[in-house]
Amino acid sequence: MSELAQEMKAMGEAARRAARILALSDADQRTRAIAAMSAAIADDTAEILDANAHDVAAARAAGLAAPLIDRLTLDAAAVAAMANGVDTIARIADPLGEVMARWTRPNGLDIARVRVPIGVLAVIYESRPNVTADAAALAVRAGNAVILRGGSEALHSARAIHAAIEQGLVSANLPAEAVQLVKTADRAAVGLILSGLDGAVDLIVPRGGRSLVERVAAEARAPVLGHLEGVCHTYVHAAADPVKARDIVLNAKLRRVSVCGATETLLLDEAGAARLLPQIAEALLNAGCELRGDATAQTLVPRMNVASDADWYAEYLAPILSVRVVPDLDAAVEHITRYGSGHTDAIVTEDDAAAEAFLARVDSAIVLRNASTQFADGGEFGFGGEIGISTSKLHARGPVGAEQLTTYKYVVRGDGQIRP
Amino acid sequence: MSELAQEMKAMGEAARRAARILALSDADQRTRAIAAMSAAIADDTAEILDANAHDVAAARAAGLAAPLIDRLTLDAAAVAAMANGVDTIARIADPLGEVMARWTRPNGLDIARVRVPIGVLAVIYESRPNVTADAAALAVRAGNAVILRGGSEALHSARAIHAAIEQGLVSANLPAEAVQLVKTADRAAVGLILSGLDGAVDLIVPRGGRSLVERVAAEARAPVLGHLEGVCHTYVHAAADPVKARDIVLNAKLRRVSVCGATETLLLDEAGAARLLPQIAEALLNAGCELRGDATAQTLVPRMNVASDADWYAEYLAPILSVRVVPDLDAAVEHITRYGSGHTDAIVTEDDAAAEAFLARVDSAIVLRNASTQFADGGEFGFGGEIGISTSKLHARGPVGAEQLTTYKYVVRGDGQIRP
Repeated sequence: MSELAQEMKAMGEAARRAARILALSDADQRTRAIAAMSAAIADDTAEILDANAHDVAAARAAGLAAPLIDRLTLDAAAVAAMANGVDTIARIADPLGEVMARWTRPNGLDIARVRVPIGVLAVIYESRPNVTADAAALAVRAGNAVILRGGSEALHSARAIHAAIEQGLVSANLPAEAVQLVKTADRAAVGLILSGLDGAVDLIVPRGGRSLVERVAAEARAPVLGHLEGVCHTYVHAAADPVKARDIVLNAKLRRVSVCGATETLLLDEAGAARLLPQIAEALLNAGCELRGDATAQTLVPRMNVASDADWYAEYLAPILSVRVVPDLDAAVEHITRYGSGHTDAIVTEDDAAAEAFLARVDSAIVLRNASTQFADGGEFGFGGEIGISTSKLHARGPVGAEQLTTYKYVVRGDGQIRP
Repeated sequence: MSELAQEMKAMGEAARRAARILALSDADQRTRAIAAMSAAIADDTAEILDANAHDVAAARAAGLAAPLIDRLTLDAAAVAAMANGVDTIARIADPLGEVMARWTRPNGLDIARVRVPIGVLAVIYESRPNVTADAAALAVRAGNAVILRGGSEALHSARAIHAAIEQGLVSANLPAEAVQLVKTADRAAVGLILSGLDGAVDLIVPRGGRSLVERVAAEARAPVLGHLEGVCHTYVHAAADPVKARDIVLNAKLRRVSVCGATETLLLDEAGAARLLPQIAEALLNAGCELRGDATAQTLVPRMNVASDADWYAEYLAPILSVRVVPDLDAAVEHITRYGSGHTDAIVTEDDAAAEAFLARVDSAIVLRNASTQFADGGEFGFGGEIGISTSKLHARGPVGAEQLTTYKYVVRGDGQIRP
């Protein structure tokens, strides 16, 4: 076994031991630990910014793309926001011990379904430094130990943030090994995590682009909470209010173009397109968004480029929107079913029956009426934070907060029952 | 692509189409379909018994082991029980559409977490013919389409049962393709299912022994609901009532030795062993159970064989029980954590504090106080039936009934909200 493999195996064993302690810790102790993590991050702002400057300089020297450097770069406000995000997680309701259901059987057995931690998580992510803090806080809130493996270009930042997290854990008498950071840039570490570390990892959470997702799908030997791309749709129904439609589409596409909840395709009813599309398109074009439409859409908005079939599958993460005019709600649902990624899809309409039909028939993690798809976010849902948006149908779907990082067990209390 | 691969791909596509119809069917329609399946199974008793006699004769001719032939063989009472089991599933509460949680955000967004079907299930099982009926009924109750692949030795029986299921679906105007049976004995069909049939399969449920579980772990490219072995423990604490302890251990081990909830290891406190073990052991030995103990247990019960380390890991599924005397509750929990499979574990004690400590600290799908581990069963939990007991920590843990075969989506209703 290589030295790295030995180190990672020891990390898995330490995480398992820490998980047993965390599972039996009380909510107050975990709250104190998370609040102390937040305070330590704020206190260590200078160290974190120093470390981050080191990462950013190395990234510039290596010629990394500007958006990547943007995602990597911290300033004092960003560190304060990170500390504040962790503090929010300290304040949310503790999920553990909740009796999710309880009933008594005719034979007198008392059965309770009780929320418990999953155990050991492994989060594999890329360059955003705040993920180190968010993932640690959410894991501990849910009573899990976690092994963090961030992008190598953010390693100095991650080490500095992790040092603050360890301070928080120790100050609340929780084991420092509850949150461990892989401190090598060696990509073999990812392969070892995906192997499950001899059964020590209960759940792998990948947060990254397509190449990471594909590697995880091919190599993972432990359960994975899938986070795939967001090919999100906004469907403007014939009975849409034109102002709401314009404002929602503009926000859903352009508020931030790089998030997975950004709308990538606009669908409009044939019956409403002439009334609704021109003003929506004008607002988008004025804001610098490229439009790629089908023939009908192009007729209504001549400044639109032509969309190919590939556009309906595209997650642009850029100021580009594909536009299609469909005969009716059936066709809109059919388009979303065929081309969508099951992430987040919205209808804009004042017609209650059409809205409810859309909400029932579109099989996505999040379906919305008369609201921006950019609300696909754990914070916006009131979860206090999120580790990502799951497009998996199993275990957790949609925003993954602390509650989604738990499982349950059945606690059965009897007084001597035997089975006939 | 082979002819089989083409057939299986078409099956996946048909299942996907059927799943869409099922997801929008109403509860009454699914109830009528399941009740009609039950009636058709009862009506077709003669055909099912004929087909089964064919399977049993072939199994005898092939020299299959007696327990396998036992599991395969049906009589009129078994068919009636199968019809009755399906009817029970028709009568349980429909899980779909349940609003699991609903809240309003400060910006007025109304967020509901609503229970919806998973989509397309694939159940891979072995020789028990009743699984064909149970899996079909539970899948349809939860609004899922299902592809069934039973053991080749039970293929004639499965075809006859499946014909009755199709009648039930069609009589309620649901698509026959909601429940499809793989009608070939070719084992390549299992490989194709494990490949996920081009994304058509949302969840694979394997029900079988170690070789199936290992094949699934190695080959599956769709999510799997794990069902591993049950190395279950009954821990007789020093403060146990001796009569309850004897009756519970006898039942937990011997009621049926072949079920995954059967106790395989008896743990006793040092402080109580001399008082409690001799009478428990005598009852077990008189009932024909072999005992394999550690040195202390052997001193107390001379007619006990010696246990090796392998015995602590063993899922005997036979009238054999390993017996270990431990210093205290800590050591009992440690033993279960090390050797158990996270399935079902029980404590027998009159001491409330000890009981609650055990229930909190043992991280298994089901933990019991003063009751037989053989209660690990969906029917005994009141689920109306089960497709197995999940030892996975993700998605569903413990008995998997209709509710566990669902997922949820978030339905968000707004009136024009955009994200700042």
